Amino acid sequence: MISIRLKYILQQIGLSGFTNPILVGISGGPDSLCLLDILHRAGYPLIIAHLNHGLRPEAEADARMVKQLAADLGVEFVLGKEDVNGFALENKLSIEEAARFLRYRFLFSQARQYAVQAVAVAHTANDQVETILMHLLRGTGLSGLKGMSYVTLPNAWSQDIPLIRPMLSTWREEIVQYCQEHHLQPVQDKTNLDTTYYRNRLRHELIPYLENYNPQVCKLLWRTAQTLAGDDEIVEQAVASAWKDCIGEQGPGYVFLSLSVLLKFGKGLQRRLVRQAIDRARPGLLDIGFETIDRVIGFITSPCRSANLSLVGGLYLLIEGDRLWVAARGAALPDFEWPQAPRDKQIELNVPGEVTLPNGWRLKTEPVRRADLPFSYHSNQDAFQAWLSSECLQQPLIIRSRLPGDRFQPLGMDGRAVKLSDFMINAQLPRRARSAWPLVCSNEEIAWIPGMRISQQFRIVENTHQIVHIQLVKIEQG
Amino acid sequence: MISIRLKYILQQIGLSGFTNPILVGISGGPDSLCLLDILHRAGYPLIIAHLNHGLRPEAEADARMVKQLAADLGVEFVLGKEDVNGFALENKLSIEEAARFLRYRFLFSQARQYAVQAVAVAHTANDQVETILMHLLRGTGLSGLKGMSYVTLPNAWSQDIPLIRPMLSTWREEIVQYCQEHHLQPVQDKTNLDTTYYRNRLRHELIPYLENYNPQVCKLLWRTAQTLAGDDEIVEQAVASAWKDCIGEQGPGYVFLSLSVLLKFGKGLQRRLVRQAIDRARPGLLDIGFETIDRVIGFITSPCRSANLSLVGGLYLLIEGDRLWVAARGAALPDFEWPQAPRDKQIELNVPGEVTLPNGWRLKTEPVRRADLPFSYHSNQDAFQAWLSSECLQQPLIIRSRLPGDRFQPLGMDGRAVKLSDFMINAQLPRRARSAWPLVCSNEEIAWIPGMRISQQFRIVENTHQIVHIQLVKIEQG
Repeated sequence: MISIRLKYILQQIGLSGFTNPILVGISGGPDSLCLLDILHRAGYPLIIAHLNHGLRPEAEADARMVKQLAADLGVEFVLGKEDVNGFALENKLSIEEAARFLRYRFLFSQARQYAVQAVAVAHTANDQVETILMHLLRGTGLSGLKGMSYVTLPNAWSQDIPLIRPMLSTWREEIVQYCQEHHLQPVQDKTNLDTTYYRNRLRHELIPYLENYNPQVCKLLWRTAQTLAGDDEIVEQAVASAWKDCIGEQGPGYVFLSLSVLLKFGKGLQRRLVRQAIDRARPGLLDIGFETIDRVIGFITSPCRSANLSLVGGLYLLIEGDRLWVAARGAALPDFEWPQAPRDKQIELNVPGEVTLPNGWRLKTEPVRRADLPFSYHSNQDAFQAWLSSECLQQPLIIRSRLPGDRFQPLGMDGRAVKLSDFMINAQLPRRARSAWPLVCSNEEIAWIPGMRISQQFRIVENTHQIVHIQLVKIEQG
Repeated sequence: MISIRLKYILQQIGLSGFTNPILVGISGGPDSLCLLDILHRAGYPLIIAHLNHGLRPEAEADARMVKQLAADLGVEFVLGKEDVNGFALENKLSIEEAARFLRYRFLFSQARQYAVQAVAVAHTANDQVETILMHLLRGTGLSGLKGMSYVTLPNAWSQDIPLIRPMLSTWREEIVQYCQEHHLQPVQDKTNLDTTYYRNRLRHELIPYLENYNPQVCKLLWRTAQTLAGDDEIVEQAVASAWKDCIGEQGPGYVFLSLSVLLKFGKGLQRRLVRQAIDRARPGLLDIGFETIDRVIGFITSPCRSANLSLVGGLYLLIEGDRLWVAARGAALPDFEWPQAPRDKQIELNVPGEVTLPNGWRLKTEPVRRADLPFSYHSNQDAFQAWLSSECLQQPLIIRSRLPGDRFQPLGMDGRAVKLSDFMINAQLPRRARSAWPLVCSNEEIAWIPGMRISQQFRIVENTHQIVHIQLVKIEQG
């Protein structure tokens, strides 16, 4: 019965048949002996791998026993030995974490050497339930609640060798029975390495306790995990597809999303996408709390958002128009070639004349007679061109970036002066672009802010005859 | 602090302001008194609704207390009374189920009368955690693990009046503190109606027990639920969109999906879609087990599938070409106007001549001379036309449906006869279409199976001069 199910699962996993061997991790305990026996009887070519964790006095004897078993079966045997205690101490890991890490490292290094088609481990249905409960108690999401999978590829250890767990739907009591029926003699592992104290408490105390509430609880939890695995697949696919739709650009320490696209998705997808953006901006930042994501969602969906929000882990959020940046402090965000003036000096510009700005832009001037004013002057469609009253302008024009205290009289506000910084904010000029945004000045006065507005003071009025046409143009590349 | 959070949540819920009242269910316990106090202070127009469940001697006193409270606050008060015990007995429900049903029925019937903007109940963060644990122990999926929502609309009781739970992120200890600070005096509910024995055990035994494993377990479970709610939304949307792509037709007791479209989705979506199809074919069939869904997926993805599979609840699965039917036994599936012969009699057909078949089809014959054979005869592109050797045919032709023992000599098989039933299966003729599929016969011999093949016996050979051209055509509607 177990073996039929196992063979069916191996078929479903889609192993490429009986050509390349499967490397099977054998501790010598009942689970792994059962797995080994079934795989061997089914005719799969195998390699038995055993890691001596160096933790118990019996470890040497266990290794010899597994080696002997391999010899009896006529199966290749590889043995590893590690100092788990030392490794744990060195890397500040728990014994279990260290053992787990070293075990998989050993299995996959051997797997690569032997070019196997898969690494098989003997996790059972009980292990699955314990894993889910452990995740639940420690706080988790969908990916934790779905538990382990029959096949994991890519996995933390390989892009091309799958980690398989064919026993994941087999219960421990079935295994014990199988071992009896087939006269398998597992070693007695007193620490049960794979199961820390915490896991043992779960197994021997919590689960029996929960069975008081529902004797079927293990089976039900197992099924819940199975169902959630399907849902997790759906979510992953939906997130991947939505990510493609809203990702703008990604670089070292930053990523930006299209805010308008992001806001079209439901809250659930928004959360996932923000989480992913944080993860891309700072890979390996493990502790992205629930509250952080919540704050970000609140920030971007609130109608009166400011442009900047500090996050955990030295990250911040920045909104520039439709761009939602998630970036590490200090990361060099691309500036998208905004027009910028030199920060440290002023440039003189004659009429006619032209000057080149540092960031791939050019300012050009020419005198225009009143009669030659083009129609576009009236429709005012291009904020990167301006027509100013030459009679009021002091020449040469001065091109500079903003200075503390700068004020400006925007056209159409009856000559009222506003703080330049306020004007730039109202015009939704990205903060990073503001400090070196080019200003066209006459003496001290700002005559034109390219891309935004001319000054009321320099507008063309009824009796203006001499006019200056100014253009800010992007220099064509190549 | 609580009240700020609550107001924020009410804002997020998006209540339409302060015009229409909120109907708030008040038992008189601390949770509901706290909710009432905050809503009242925030200025929301309210209606207080109290249901006397008739279960405890103090119930009358509680009702009077809530009524007095309403009077003190100057808030409208509605009182209901139900015989929960009797209702539970009558409908074979637990006391809790009956109380719950009657309570919501009462709240929503009042809500409709008063045209309120929402029905508010006082479920807390603790209730949320208990609900999730209860679902977990009884077996659940994503929709059970996400717990309750701040807003539910549509809900089981209304399509347009939302059920809201603004206290869902407020913990019981915060509520107790609030009640003390604001001198609220809740009634003492000894049975705690909303909390059965099972729930009480969860609250007083299981949760403290779990806190031994992790003191933060409640907060973590609450967060897990919140995250899963987002994922559930993603899954629901993905399923709705996939359903649109693969749904063919739905009628009383049946639904069919496009098999090819279904098979393009991942296993997770396949599961969800199959579950939905079962639910549509037999609404209210609650017990769609995990195994049932699994069997269906196995059936449709297995390369050597048969055409029919029995499911639970009198349902079955039927594959017809690209159609995957899920149907109740006895449901009249549309037959898509296949050509069908009368089941109980034979029809004679002369050459030239024509007969009308029951299902909107017509058979026409005409004599054709060898020289007039069209080119399409050779290319044989239309299986609903045939050219037969007139010299071998016994006239009039006989049109009938199949009979037990029918055999057929398909063209191109050297005159070997096969069982008609096998031939139909090989030709992938849907099972339901087979029994009355029209056969064109010469005496006892099947000369042509329209839509499939002519008989080797009646083919045109070198010295055939007289030919019969037969066509099966759909009669145009309208």
